[in-house]
Order: sequence, then C-alpha cells, then structure tokens
Amino acid sequence: MAVRAKAAAPTLDEFARAVRAEDLEPLWLQIGDLFSAEPTTPIQPYLWAWETVRARMLQAGELMPLGNEGAARRVLALKNPGARMGLATTQTLSAAVQLVHPGELAPAHRHTPAAIRFIIEGRATITIVDGEPCTMAPGDLILTPNWTWHSHVNEGDGPILWLDALDAPVVMALNQMFYEEYPTAQQPFTKARDDSLQRYGGALLPTWETPTRAWSPLLSYKWEQTEARLRGLAQAEGSPFDGIALNYTNPFTGGPVLPTMGCQVQMLRPRERTRAHRHTSSAVYHVVRGQGATTINGRRFEWRRGDVLALPTWAWHAHENTSPSEEAFLFAVTDQPLLRALDLYREEPASANPVD
Amino acid sequence: MAVRAKAAAPTLDEFARAVRAEDLEPLWLQIGDLFSAEPTTPIQPYLWAWETVRARMLQAGELMPLGNEGAARRVLALKNPGARMGLATTQTLSAAVQLVHPGELAPAHRHTPAAIRFIIEGRATITIVDGEPCTMAPGDLILTPNWTWHSHVNEGDGPILWLDALDAPVVMALNQMFYEEYPTAQQPFTKARDDSLQRYGGALLPTWETPTRAWSPLLSYKWEQTEARLRGLAQAEGSPFDGIALNYTNPFTGGPVLPTMGCQVQMLRPRERTRAHRHTSSAVYHVVRGQGATTINGRRFEWRRGDVLALPTWAWHAHENTSPSEEAFLFAVTDQPLLRALDLYREEPASANPVD
Amino acid sequence: MAVRAKAAAPTLDEFARAVRAEDLEPLWLQIGDLFSAEPTTPIQPYLWAWETVRARMLQAGELMPLGNEGAARRVLALKNPGARMGLATTQTLSAAVQLVHPGELAPAHRHTPAAIRFIIEGRATITIVDGEPCTMAPGDLILTPNWTWHSHVNEGDGPILWLDALDAPVVMALNQMFYEEYPTAQQPFTKARDDSLQRYGGALLPTWETPTRAWSPLLSYKWEQTEARLRGLAQAEGSPFDGIALNYTNPFTGGPVLPTMGCQVQMLRPRERTRAHRHTSSAVYHVVRGQGATTINGRRFEWRRGDVLALPTWAWHAHENTSPSEEAFLFAVTDQPLLRALDLYREEPASANPVD
Amino acid sequence: MAVRAKAAAPTLDEFARAVRAEDLEPLWLQIGDLFSAEPTTPIQPYLWAWETVRARMLQAGELMPLGNEGAARRVLALKNPGARMGLATTQTLSAAVQLVHPGELAPAHRHTPAAIRFIIEGRATITIVDGEPCTMAPGDLILTPNWTWHSHVNEGDGPILWLDALDAPVVMALNQMFYEEYPTAQQPFTKARDDSLQRYGGALLPTWETPTRAWSPLLSYKWEQTEARLRGLAQAEGSPFDGIALNYTNPFTGGPVLPTMGCQVQMLRPRERTRAHRHTSSAVYHVVRGQGATTINGRRFEWRRGDVLALPTWAWHAHENTSPSEEAFLFAVTDQPLLRALDLYREEPASANPVD
Repeated sequence: MAVRAKAAAPTLDEFARAVRAEDLEPLWLQIGDLFSAEPTTPIQPYLWAWETVRARMLQAGELMPLGNEGAARRVLALKNPGARMGLATTQTLSAAVQLVHPGELAPAHRHTPAAIRFIIEGRATITIVDGEPCTMAPGDLILTPNWTWHSHVNEGDGPILWLDALDAPVVMALNQMFYEEYPTAQQPFTKARDDSLQRYGGALLPTWETPTRAWSPLLSYKWEQTEARLRGLAQAEGSPFDGIALNYTNPFTGGPVLPTMGCQVQMLRPRERTRAHRHTSSAVYHVVRGQGATTINGRRFEWRRGDVLALPTWAWHAHENTSPSEEAFLFAVTDQPLLRALDLYREEPASANPVD
Repeated sequence: MAVRAKAAAPTLDEFARAVRAEDLEPLWLQIGDLFSAEPTTPIQPYLWAWETVRARMLQAGELMPLGNEGAARRVLALKNPGARMGLATTQTLSAAVQLVHPGELAPAHRHTPAAIRFIIEGRATITIVDGEPCTMAPGDLILTPNWTWHSHVNEGDGPILWLDALDAPVVMALNQMFYEEYPTAQQPFTKARDDSLQRYGGALLPTWETPTRAWSPLLSYKWEQTEARLRGLAQAEGSPFDGIALNYTNPFTGGPVLPTMGCQVQMLRPRERTRAHRHTSSAVYHVVRGQGATTINGRRFEWRRGDVLALPTWAWHAHENTSPSEEAFLFAVTDQPLLRALDLYREEPASANPVD
Repeated sequence: MAVRAKAAAPTLDEFARAVRAEDLEPLWLQIGDLFSAEPTTPIQPYLWAWETVRARMLQAGELMPLGNEGAARRVLALKNPGARMGLATTQTLSAAVQLVHPGELAPAHRHTPAAIRFIIEGRATITIVDGEPCTMAPGDLILTPNWTWHSHVNEGDGPILWLDALDAPVVMALNQMFYEEYPTAQQPFTKARDDSLQRYGGALLPTWETPTRAWSPLLSYKWEQTEARLRGLAQAEGSPFDGIALNYTNPFTGGPVLPTMGCQVQMLRPRERTRAHRHTSSAVYHVVRGQGATTINGRRFEWRRGDVLALPTWAWHAHENTSPSEEAFLFAVTDQPLLRALDLYREEPASANPVD
Repeated sequence: MAVRAKAAAPTLDEFARAVRAEDLEPLWLQIGDLFSAEPTTPIQPYLWAWETVRARMLQAGELMPLGNEGAARRVLALKNPGARMGLATTQTLSAAVQLVHPGELAPAHRHTPAAIRFIIEGRATITIVDGEPCTMAPGDLILTPNWTWHSHVNEGDGPILWLDALDAPVVMALNQMFYEEYPTAQQPFTKARDDSLQRYGGALLPTWETPTRAWSPLLSYKWEQTEARLRGLAQAEGSPFDGIALNYTNPFTGGPVLPTMGCQVQMLRPRERTRAHRHTSSAVYHVVRGQGATTINGRRFEWRRGDVLALPTWAWHAHENTSPSEEAFLFAVTDQPLLRALDLYREEPASANPVD
C-alpha cells in the first residue's frame, strides 16, 4: 500500500464524474438534499374562487365543443401554483371542474386513474359507469373507479358543473397509466338508473352478490341523505379537528370508497372553530354551502360556496364557520387511504390553541 | 408370548368395562353411532302458527306479571318438538315471543348469549341497549349483542309483541354463559334515541369513531327502509333460492350483524317459487307479511303473517309465494356466520326442480 | 271481557302444561337454571396417567385388530368423568390415544371433525393427508383438518403411540357431522414425503400457490425445530402465565392452525412457577418431557412424561416445573380460536399470587 | 347574446393563456400526453456488472471515510440511465451498493423510506435495527423498515458489501420524507443477537406478543435456510415464469415483508428457461449465484454472480439458466405489494414461446 503513489488517487470530484459515467451515483452527494427532517412539498396552500372558475368554465363552454369535433372532456384543471407535474392540485390529487351543456355527451373511455365527481350545480345529467346510469344533482358524489367505463350525458336544459378529483398524479408517478376509448361514444345502458344505490345503498346488502374489486360497488351517494345524516348528528361530539365529519365508505368493507382516495364531508356548526392539527395526507376541499375560513400554516383562506382549497401534506390547519346562524358544509377528497396502505400516514394535534 | 396362557386374556367386553373404570372409552364401541355420513339432528321442521302463539302470549300477559314481582321477561320459547336441550328452536338458535304491556318494564340485564328482536305488532316501545333507547315498530330489527345491557319499556297504550332469537343453545353447549343484572331495574339513558341509527345508518360513517367489538354498532334497522330497499330491487335477478334477499350487515365490515347469527330478509314476488337447496346452517323464519308455503324435505308448510318456521340443518327447502298479487316478506335468523367462521358451512343446490 | 268468570283463569301450572302441548315453553320456568352468573360445566379437571393409558393401549393392541377385520382405529378416548356426551375430554375437545403396530394400516377416511396428532413414542410411521405422507416421530405435530382424507401406516418394527385431539364435541353439538370412507384402505401417495414441510415450513412461501381453505396448509411441525425454538428463547421474558410459550400457526395467516382448535407448546424453566389466570377456553395438556404440577381451582395435579390433563373452561390454573435442573415441556390443544371467532373469549389474571 | 360581438371572443390560445394565469389548465391541452394506452416509463432495462460496481466500491472505500468525518453512508446508487429523479433504479425502487470496512460504523438514523439489505460478500458485521443486532453473512436478507433506527458495524477483519433497496422514489414522489439522526453514532443494544430470528423465525410464534406495525417483525432471513428451502423444492412444479420462487413473508400475516416492497428468491434449475410474462410491478434483480440471461422486451442481458438488473414496469421478460449443471439463484425486490394495495397490479403471460 505504502509504495502506491498517493498522487495517483483521484479526487472525490474526479471519482464522481467517473462513476456517473457508469450509472452509479455517490449517495453522499445527494443525501443532504433528499433526506429532509420533515416532509417538504412544492405544493402550496391555495384557494380557487368559484366565481372565477365558474366564469372561465362558461367561457370554455362557448369556445370548446365537446365530443367528436371538440374535446373528450371540457375540463379546467386546478393546477397548484407550486406543482411541477402536469395537473396536480396536491402531490397526489388532481382536481378539476367539468362542464357539460344540454344535449352534450362526454364520450365513454376508461383509465387506471380513478375519479370522483361531486356535483356543484345543475341536474338532469347522468354519468354512466360500466353500464349503470348514475343520476347527478347538486351535492351528489359519483365514483368512476380505476378502469371502469364512464361517459357523461346532459339530458336537461341547463348546464351542469361538477368537481372532478383524480389520483392521476400517483398513477403517473408510478408509471401505471392505462387508457382505452370505448368503441362508440355512448356505452350501452346495461343496468337500471342508480342501480348500485338500490343494491348497496344501506346496511342491507344483496345475498346473491360478492364484490370482487378493491373499490366500492356503491357508485352514488346522494346529497339529500348526506345532509340528513350530518344534521341528525348535530348534537354529537364530532371530531375536534373537523366538526361533524363523515367518511364515505364501501358498504362491503366499511373502508374507503377507493384504495387511493378517500372522501369526507363535514358540517361546521354556526361559529364552530376546530382545533388545528396536521397529517401527512393532503386534501382538496370544496365548499358545498356556507361561509368560513381555513387557516393553513398561519395563512387564512376565507371561503364561500363553490370554492376549492388545496391542503398540502403535513400542513397545520383549522377550520372556522364564520356564520352566526348557518351551518357550513365542506366536502373533501384525500389521499389518506393510500398513505395508510403504505404505512406512511401520521397525524399530530396542535399542542396549543387553534392557529390564527 | 406363546407361553402366556391365552385363557388369561380378557374379552373385549371385559376390557371395555375395565378401561371405562379408568375414564377411557374404546372408540370402536362409539364410532358407528357418532360418525354419520351426513348431518343428523333431532330438530324437526316445524311451524308455530301466529294465531296460537299470540293468544297464548296474551294469556301469559294476564297471568304472569313482569318485573319486580313477576318474571324478568314475559317470554314463551318456541321449543322444537325434537329438541333435547332446554329451549332450542334449532340446534343453535332459540326463538321466542315476548310481550310487554303499556307501562311495563323488563328490567336491565346482560348475558353472553346475543339476541335479536324483530317486532311483530305494537309500537311506542323502546329497547335500551347500553344506554341507547332504540325505538320499536313493526318490522324493525333491534340487536342486543353479547354482553350488552338491555331492558325494554312500553311507553304506549297498547301491547307490543316481538320475536326474540338468541344463540343460547350454542353458548350453553360451549359452557360460556355469563349473566348479570343491572343494579337498578332501569338503566340510565346515556345516548340519544336511535343514536346508532343516526351514526351508522348508511354508507357514511363518523370519522371520529372506530368500533372495537365483533358485532355491528348499528343496533337498529327500520322496516320502512328495509321494505323500500326490497321493493327497489323488485326487477333484480335475486337469488334463485330466496328471491330478493338482503343480509343485514355491520356497516363497518359488510359482514354479519353478530359473529354467531346472521339476519336476512327476503321478498317473494307474486307467485314466485324458488329453487330448492340445502345448507348446513339452520334457520328460524318469521312471516312479516303475505302468505305462501315452504317445503322442507318434502313436507309442505303453509304460512301466513306472524308464523314462525324452524328449518333444520342440511334440509332441502324451497319457498313459494302463493298470492297472485301481493308480495310476501320473510325474515330469517341463521347460524351461517358461526358455521362459516368454523369452516363448517356447506351448501348444495337441488339438481332438479323444486321439491314439492 | 268483564263477564268472563275470573275463576276460569288457569293457574300458571295449568298454563305451562297447556302451552307445552303446543311446543311453547315459559321462559320463567327455565331462566334460573339456564342463566348462570359465570360459566358452569360438567367437565372436571382431570389427569390421565401415561403409565395406565399406555398399558391399556398395549392391551388393546393385543385384543383388537386394526383394519379390515378389526377396528377402523385402535383408539381409547380420554373421556372426562363429568362428560355427558360420548367422548368429550373437555366440553369442546375430544382427546384420545391411538396405537398402530408395525405393518398395520388404519384405513383412509375423512370427516368434518378436524384432528391433530401429537406423537408420544415410536417412529417410522406415516400419516397420509390428502395424498401427502407425513412422517411421524416423537414430539411431532400432524394436522388432519376438516374433511381431509387421512390414513396411518406403521412402516417400522415397533409400535407407535400418539395423542389425538378432535373438535368432535363441537361438530356434534352443532349437528355438522359428515363422514366418508375412501374406496380403498390405502389412499394413493400424490405428494412427496413431508411435502408441506418443504413448501410451507418457514417464512419463505411459494409464489405460485395460494391456499384456499381456512386451515394451515403446513400439516407437519417437527419436534426438533420446536424444541430448538423454545430453547433459543430461554432468556426471553415469556408469558407470566405459561413461561416460554409458542403458538403453532398457519404460515399464510399467522393465525391458528385450525379454525376450531389451537395448538401451543410451552417450556417451563427449572423451578419456574407461573402466575395463575383463567380463560373461557378449555384445554388438553400433554407432558412432552419433564415433571411438575398444575394447580386447577386449588387442586394440585402432579404430572410426568406422557400424562394428559384436562383443563375446564374458566378454571384458575398455574403451572410449576418441580425439577431444579431440567426443563419441562407441555403441549396443549385449546378451543381458543373457536371462542375468539364467536367473540366469547375472555381471560382474567389472578389478582394475587399463584393459587396453591 | 346575439348582440355581443363575436369578434370579441378570444381564441383558444388566448383563453389558455388567460386561465393559466389563474392557475387553471385546459385538460384538452394535456390529455394526449398524459393518457397513454399502456404504461410508459423513462426507466430502461439495465444491468450493472458486479465486477465494475465492486471495483468502484473499493475505490470509494479508499477515498471516502465513513462516519464522523466522512459520509453517513458509503453508498453508490445504481441510477437508472433513464431516471429523471435523483437515485431511482426503477420508478419506485432505489438500489445501491454499500461498503463497510473493518472497525467502521455507519451511524444510527431513521427515515420513512424502508430498506432491505442483501449481503453480497463479507461477514462478521451487524446491522442494528431498533436495538437488535442482526448478523450479516452472504445471502442473508435484513429489513430496516420505515422509521426504524438502524446502524451498521463491521466487527470483522475484511470488508462487507451488500445490496440496498429502498422505496425512496415512492416516498419522495409522495412528499413523505421524515429523517432523524440518533443522538449518538451507535444506538444501544437492547435485544439479543438475531432476537427476531429466535422469536419469529418459523411457524411457531410467541403467545405473549402481538405486532402492531404493518411490516414484518422478523427482520432477518438467513441464506442457509433460504437455499435449503429452494433445494428441497427442486422437484416441485414451480412457477412457469420464475422457476422455484419463494416470497419472503411476514410470519404474522403471510403477506409481504414491507407494505411497499416485496422480496423474492428464485432457483433456476440447470438449463431451465422460463415462460415470458409482464406485470405492472418493476423489480431489481441480484444474482446470488450462477450464470444465465434475462431477456427483457427482446433484449438479452447475460448475468453472473453479483450483477444487478433493473426490470421496468410492464416489460416482457423471461429468465434462463445457461449452465448445464449448476443451479442459478436470483434475489429480487419488487413494488408488487404497493401496486396490489392500490389495485394497480396487473400481469399477463406471453401467448407464445419465451421471447428471445
């Protein structure tokens, strides 16, 4: 060893250059950047005002035809100002708003990203999911899980607008995109209207069926029942962080509606202020009704009906209903099921009072 | 060996006597009796006519006071004519009818046998389960699971009669009886009326709760919704053996309401006749409404509203709604969850036409 | 109503007679007997001395041929002196001892009661389970689950004796007996010797297989490994109630080997005395090696190699290794999986010191 | 409407510019790029030759000290030539090689990315995982799950080299990185050597423990047993795609060792050629022993002892042992558990013969 010329040894820089040419990367040059004490994310807390989004959607409705000679979907994605990837609202969720005019058809296709639809305004429209026409009215939740055929038809005389949320950022980050168009624009109706609601819409389940997929066979959750359930629990203790909050569940498992995304609805009672907490899941909130504010990492976002709000991972947040007399209703989509499945979910309550 | 006197060898009879005195039993003397090719049971297919049972219950209501100076429960058990054990309706299920008059209180107690209550007539009555007052009306199902405090109070002005079904034969066969009386006749109300129905009565479940027991935290299933669900599926294919049949489920698991007993409700459409099959589970049927017949092992039992019917294990059976115009509704309690848990459940369709 | 003569009202005795003729039973006449504050059982704590059992087994070996012209099985059941039913050792478990002489074949059959075999003495014998020859040597555990074909062949030159334990009392109490003889006395060998041990005998499992039944596909657990595992944990804290105690598990689930019966082996270190506790499960213990005592409800049972001991439900018990220098090994079969599945399992530690 | 000047309507380009300024993105401009018919990935099939990697590692061992005055870890990451992100070997897996010289200590830290270690050469070294010293020898697998403290110490007189595989690309893509250094370089030893192997290394599991995490509490899998299991199954049918292939499992669940990564080992018999298939999971293969070739999407990669091979998602692949007399052993890490949990796993056999 001693006789080997020390001068011949490469420097660390020279070594790094050499090994990179061999598709090797010294970890010591990367570890400082990669290993942060707590999660960092380019995603920003952000609010899209419904007034703006709605106006743009209607404008899109004039400019961009739907279907054969236009777009497959008339959608504006709510792209987080911090997002590096295409259409991310949070690191894992892609929210958007979709508009279908009377007589229009968004043609049938399917893809591995799963989607939920939460109706904001309009009715007399159906989403057909694997042959089942699901009716749509304000506040309803419709699921179009991973690899289910889906199309949308407006059968009424006014426009319909809804919120889309997809797990597309995850599916794309994992390089798991499959996509297929149905041979015809409209898929055949093979089931009765709201068939899954009849079959699975309660604690009594058909004896002759056993679901075989990882997602909820109940594809439709009606707002009327949702609001009734929330109001019926108005006297309950609720969650200190969310007020009266309910998970949408798969009736065959009690678990989340989709393996990647969970849906939650919460009612904040007049003047209710929740405790702050944070969790590793991110969320997209939508204001179904009411007015209030959510404070995220010390920044206050005031919200009203229709607004959409992005909550990044591991961000402190607390909600407030600012009305002295009316309930506020928030709908949320989160990636909590995904993080729980991977054992990456953590949550932490704020030690002191709500952040302001 | 050869020199040992053969004469000294005992006969098999002498041997058997000798070893029995040592608490040993030759298997070869028992195996023929014990190991049958297919299940045998002392339980008989049997029908209790509601007309008779109801009259006897009212008579019991005059003769036997309830509560402090009378019986803890005013109950007539439907004892199968073949039953060897105390109160068995089938080998695993004990069905009975209970009567509470206005103003009466069946005092609070708890026990390891779990029970279900299915209301036959009367209302304005509550069953309090671990502090929750569950309202009772015809067709409602109320659960009082293993080791929950329960009492019954008639707050109305007419009698109430319901069907009880317990897994007591199993709990007793396993020597697992625990029983305790509440310090006072009435337990305190610690929850709102039908609290569990508000919390768990749909596919949206509270985010701030996680049940920790093996049974459904939803304790009440209302007939109004039950019938609506059945009628909503009138056009469905249904089960070839049961028509439109629904399992009552635990909304947190999609599984049976209790680990030992499952509950099922079925609608037979006018003139509907089901295919025959058999399964190792036994069942107690109760006619909620309508008229028809069930053929068990070739014997036809005609039934009408209120009747109760015992189906033994492994017995061929098929149902028939004899009305040309009205639906028939059957409620059933079975031991299928128990048998599935022990890997003892089997079923077999009849190869040919319904048995008649 | 008013004019009906009060004198005509029957007495409660008359009423009881009348309703019994209609297959109705007043609960108030039964409830006191049926509902005990804590479990009662006819089963007694009891010990069968190996010296006696072994002598009787050898005597049976001379008197009773095995196979075609004799018994299907040469078995003496350890019938609990308190048992009402045929062959119960505890209320749920039926233990027995079986003997096969060189050249003998216990012909192939199957039945719904599941069985375990724990070898006491002898070797060079195989139990064939669904075509797989499982080798048998002292201390080995062999499973013959519910409805698996099984036969036994002694290929050596000395007798083999083993302990059988079956869930037959449960299967019979539930009226779930199915039984079938194989067309020929010997079933064909369709798998390699100890095939399941090769496939599933460790934490690495074949990628190309997925078990479909509720029981362990690993059918054989060898004593050599069992003892090595126990000795390797000699310094561990262990269970305060059982010393170093291991559950035999299904490698695909980590759960019990059978849905009805669990198997456990424990090592009591020299002079080790365990804390007393009780649980609703019952057990059959077998002394693999060593000497000691088990105190059950205040009564002390001294044991040595080969003895079998019945522990009834809900009985206080504590173990003691009386040797100052040698380990003691106890094997046990329990009904804990059954009771857990039905939500009937409870356990309770003694508040004070071990009962003596 | 009619009177509004049509000329005032913006073009679609103008509209896109306008809405982008409002953090809205027209989906129709993105959908063609984002939604591919089948998965696309920048990851390339790629092989790192052990000869090269080993030489570079030894060079790194001379240039870069370990510990206080050097790197926290002396690691060269196997960066896929197609990878956009820091250190990805496949889209979800980050493989690397690590070297520890005698007397060196890689200080204790923990992080949310989970890791596995597969030893290539060297021994007399321990990885301490949450206080448990796990011994390392060639072919052994050691787990350091999500958020477990881990450090490495070489106690011998020669270098040790091992393969690391982490789910870091997933944890980073989800923005879920937590990282913490232990207060001291060495963590205290709180458990016996290979304690988890004693406790959980077989089908008998301690009665007094219940794991509470989503990963295997068995942290160590010894090559000696692994090879014995593989050789014991040499006559088995095996998998048509992988030969004799075993999954490393969590003994408490039978499931994968980690929620994000699965480990598999396969033995290819002399001259064995497997059928081609593809699946959405990606993998990193490591050649434990032997020589052969893997054909990926028509390109043949010849391999020998120590080489590492990246298999991208949805790529056709088949394996071949080119030796006429010796077995070949491949170890693999995959993201199959992750994809299954998210319902994104698919696989497909090649319809015809192996691809060549």
